[in-house]
Amino acid sequence: MNLQAICHRPKSNYAYAICDNTILIRIRTAKGDCKRVRLVIGVKHKWADKETYDMEKTASDHLFDYYQFSYQVRESQLGYYFLISDDTTTVVYSESGFSQKFDDENAYFHYFQYPYINEPDVHKVPEWVHKAVFYQIFVDRFARGNDGFQADLRPWGELPDPHSFYGGDLKGILDKLDYLCDLGINALYLTPIFKSPSNHKYDTCDYREVDPMFGDKETLVRLVCEAHKRGMRVVLDGVFNHCSWYLPQFQDVLRNGDKSKYKDWFYIESFPITRYSEKEVNDYSRPLDLSNLNYKVFATSPNMPKLNTENREIRQYLLDTVVYWMREADLDGWRLDVSDEVSHDFWREFRKVVKQENPDTLILGENWHNAYPWLIGDQFDGVMNYPFTKSAIETFAMERKNAADLAADLSGYLMQNTWQAQNAMLNLLDSHDTMRFLTWCDYDEEKLKMAWMLMFTYVGMPCIYYGDEIGMSGKGDPDCRRTFEWDENKWNLDLHEFVKDLIHIRKKRKSLQYGGIKIYTEDEVFYLYREHREEKTLMVLNLTQKTIALERGWKCALTTRKFEDGNMNSTSSAIFYL
Amino acid sequence: MNLQAICHRPKSNYAYAICDNTILIRIRTAKGDCKRVRLVIGVKHKWADKETYDMEKTASDHLFDYYQFSYQVRESQLGYYFLISDDTTTVVYSESGFSQKFDDENAYFHYFQYPYINEPDVHKVPEWVHKAVFYQIFVDRFARGNDGFQADLRPWGELPDPHSFYGGDLKGILDKLDYLCDLGINALYLTPIFKSPSNHKYDTCDYREVDPMFGDKETLVRLVCEAHKRGMRVVLDGVFNHCSWYLPQFQDVLRNGDKSKYKDWFYIESFPITRYSEKEVNDYSRPLDLSNLNYKVFATSPNMPKLNTENREIRQYLLDTVVYWMREADLDGWRLDVSDEVSHDFWREFRKVVKQENPDTLILGENWHNAYPWLIGDQFDGVMNYPFTKSAIETFAMERKNAADLAADLSGYLMQNTWQAQNAMLNLLDSHDTMRFLTWCDYDEEKLKMAWMLMFTYVGMPCIYYGDEIGMSGKGDPDCRRTFEWDENKWNLDLHEFVKDLIHIRKKRKSLQYGGIKIYTEDEVFYLYREHREEKTLMVLNLTQKTIALERGWKCALTTRKFEDGNMNSTSSAIFYL
Repeated sequence: MNLQAICHRPKSNYAYAICDNTILIRIRTAKGDCKRVRLVIGVKHKWADKETYDMEKTASDHLFDYYQFSYQVRESQLGYYFLISDDTTTVVYSESGFSQKFDDENAYFHYFQYPYINEPDVHKVPEWVHKAVFYQIFVDRFARGNDGFQADLRPWGELPDPHSFYGGDLKGILDKLDYLCDLGINALYLTPIFKSPSNHKYDTCDYREVDPMFGDKETLVRLVCEAHKRGMRVVLDGVFNHCSWYLPQFQDVLRNGDKSKYKDWFYIESFPITRYSEKEVNDYSRPLDLSNLNYKVFATSPNMPKLNTENREIRQYLLDTVVYWMREADLDGWRLDVSDEVSHDFWREFRKVVKQENPDTLILGENWHNAYPWLIGDQFDGVMNYPFTKSAIETFAMERKNAADLAADLSGYLMQNTWQAQNAMLNLLDSHDTMRFLTWCDYDEEKLKMAWMLMFTYVGMPCIYYGDEIGMSGKGDPDCRRTFEWDENKWNLDLHEFVKDLIHIRKKRKSLQYGGIKIYTEDEVFYLYREHREEKTLMVLNLTQKTIALERGWKCALTTRKFEDGNMNSTSSAIFYL
Repeated sequence: MNLQAICHRPKSNYAYAICDNTILIRIRTAKGDCKRVRLVIGVKHKWADKETYDMEKTASDHLFDYYQFSYQVRESQLGYYFLISDDTTTVVYSESGFSQKFDDENAYFHYFQYPYINEPDVHKVPEWVHKAVFYQIFVDRFARGNDGFQADLRPWGELPDPHSFYGGDLKGILDKLDYLCDLGINALYLTPIFKSPSNHKYDTCDYREVDPMFGDKETLVRLVCEAHKRGMRVVLDGVFNHCSWYLPQFQDVLRNGDKSKYKDWFYIESFPITRYSEKEVNDYSRPLDLSNLNYKVFATSPNMPKLNTENREIRQYLLDTVVYWMREADLDGWRLDVSDEVSHDFWREFRKVVKQENPDTLILGENWHNAYPWLIGDQFDGVMNYPFTKSAIETFAMERKNAADLAADLSGYLMQNTWQAQNAMLNLLDSHDTMRFLTWCDYDEEKLKMAWMLMFTYVGMPCIYYGDEIGMSGKGDPDCRRTFEWDENKWNLDLHEFVKDLIHIRKKRKSLQYGGIKIYTEDEVFYLYREHREEKTLMVLNLTQKTIALERGWKCALTTRKFEDGNMNSTSSAIFYL
């Protein structure tokens, strides 16, 4: 037995409370190494009454198998250990490591402990995440509602450069709510809308004002209200890591140096602050010389000073701002920009404030990596699921990964976090920060369809980047931020219909919203199976060169290619149900 | 290569900030499996400038080797991966798993990330933990300062039962400060002193009063003040998990049922509250029938109702109490009873309140197990190190573990947490909750001496349980809570002198306070080596049946047995220095 492969950690993704009376116990072993894993568990002060349960193998990734057991807690204060068997031997695995026998006499020293389920420590995510189908809008490029606000707008449809403005706005989104409603999506994520000099508005210069190019508070309120009428949630982008050079408080520091009462709102190493001309900052053709930079900034952007969110004043200002907008506009959530560079300490307070105002508010981080340290219940509900994006790109676009690799990736991700957090993940194929998925796939629509099939059946909230549904293309920023094509004649209607069907299926089927999941392969074919009570859904992805026979008894809900002689074509996928 | 053995997790004990500009990167491989591990690390937005460093193998436990690298951070926002080599091959290990080559073009998707060091997330422990030598006092049994306060005291020296009172008090401790000072200890941990009906006082009935049997606020203030004059810190026991049946607020609920304004201070399932007679509760000869218990309690003790620390009122009351005592008595720390059954949420707020009042205050949990989820910087500084206790018992008392086992245990513990947390651990051989170590060892003083040698040279704060230094014995509670023997004629003077020397060495040698540590065995002999700048200390533990030659060039500071013909005796240990 590969003992070194075996892993369990109490009070982690390997042992956590799903709700106030159930803990999920998970253990990892080397792939294919073990035959049976049992959990021996009991109340610490009644250790003699301990019980033994068989654990179920629920997932396998590249190197490991995972066994789980969902334990109904009658009395907290639990001790437990594992009995792990392969063909020839059984070992005891406890906090003291591996042994032949568990030392019951000194049990307290040896067992793993789950000391107590305390209600505030249980990771609770909004119930609505299970049903959410998201649509991300880059506001300047989606739809123009108010004409002629600004003189120097680019003509709608022209290819963007980093500094072009197109006049998309909140009124535009409002006007198109029925389009979105018809598409079937029920949650909007808008890139930032607060006052900012840039087209992307990730450099806020007034946190309490809607950018005048985008509209005003009244329009925002109306947009959210009309969205709610249509059963649609609205999530805004909160940029609290950094701000704009033009934030009045930073301007005050520029003017008054260390006499400014706002100097501790930022990380300033010396005065006066190094100034860069707008021309220098906006010239993307060569790297800026930052050797004289004497204040902290986002990445390499001198026009985006980093905020010192440890300072009580600005922290309170930002938290008050968050509550202000929640109250004024009845928001449903916050997507948090560059969330991994702001302190855990800030996010813990942020969560308290937000959830106290409304526990149904979604908190979604922008972490591109395994975000476990942010997802233990005290900070975010979920994050943008870029690991999922990576696996989709490597499978469909780069064709680097086969069905087994994909299954291993997607199974592994599920094991990295709690079930609650996985359901609050924003699953995406692309965003304003990546190449469009269709472009990644060399405009092969079949690949996009297959990737969508995966995204709409996997655990987490599917998210469509505006325009993907009509076949828009674009390389990396700024090309992925083209204006939406409103001329229906130029739409890819096949894609549009396909994703509408997929959204409909996701919204109809409880198994895709709540169901447990099993991902596996057989003969190089990928299967994703979900089940909730009596309802069963199976997504089959055939990346092979051969046709495969259909599953008997299953009915087809949707397929990327028509069946041929009752067989599934090569390079196609289909959703079946029972 | 055993790939399944390899482990790294960003923002965990495998990658954490030691201070504002240094991160410690740690990686685990199968024991003896790899030859070289390199870290490839760079600033994310300057990935081309990444650098490669050899990592140092710093520890080995039962199954694993650990490599570390301390990285000086000039710019935060780090990406990194590992190059792991055995005799035949080198693999890349990144967040995407194992590969032959790192995908630099899509680096952002693949590298491990340490996104930012934010000051409030850095685990800071009081500087004084490095120098602390603790002494735990069970107050009722240490020394009687005020005679005749209570009529029904047992005669000092009689063996205790669970309910006996002996009249030890704060004045008694005050009277004996010079004894403690002479012994050399510089930190006191007192079991609870607030008003309570029991002898152990773990069931508080008035959080704002010193128990009248123990004295009053003035005596406490004087005790701390006199201790401070002698360079001695004072840590009190905070019992916030549960209280006494006689807490006035619980009594109010008993009287007024669901009309009591304190009903939410507790977890009450139905009214009226089930009452148990004092006789039933105090009869330890048979288990209580708890089938009708309708409120939550500590373990199986109906006389100790669990406190609902999620209730804002009682939470504020407890936190105010904590600050009250810190201000009134100038305390140096809190040891937190049953800390693993109170919510993480409570402890996070507790830390904020305590550290804001005085960042030098020690926060020490009572967790008997691997307490990593409490030791990431937002809750405790350290915990009572019962895993250390376990290893000491299994090695010296039970003789179940040999030098290699011990080395593996102690190395492994160091890898479970951050360096900061390990330095704030309270290392102990016994306590009011365990059999005395000497009794565990069948009164074999040599074994106690060797265990002390280990405790005083290991990382963390050594703690002597009152009376161990004079050879007191006792089985489990209540026998381990005997009255201190003040008749010096009955002391084991050899043990007393020995531990005095050991305390002196610990307090004198910076390498034992601050030094890095290497633990290893050679020919079944155990070596613990620590180094700080020019200073080096080596503890050698010979558990074998043979004598061993002394290390050349080293001078001996202390030995458990005299050397014989220039050799170290079997079953002995010694501290050497350079």
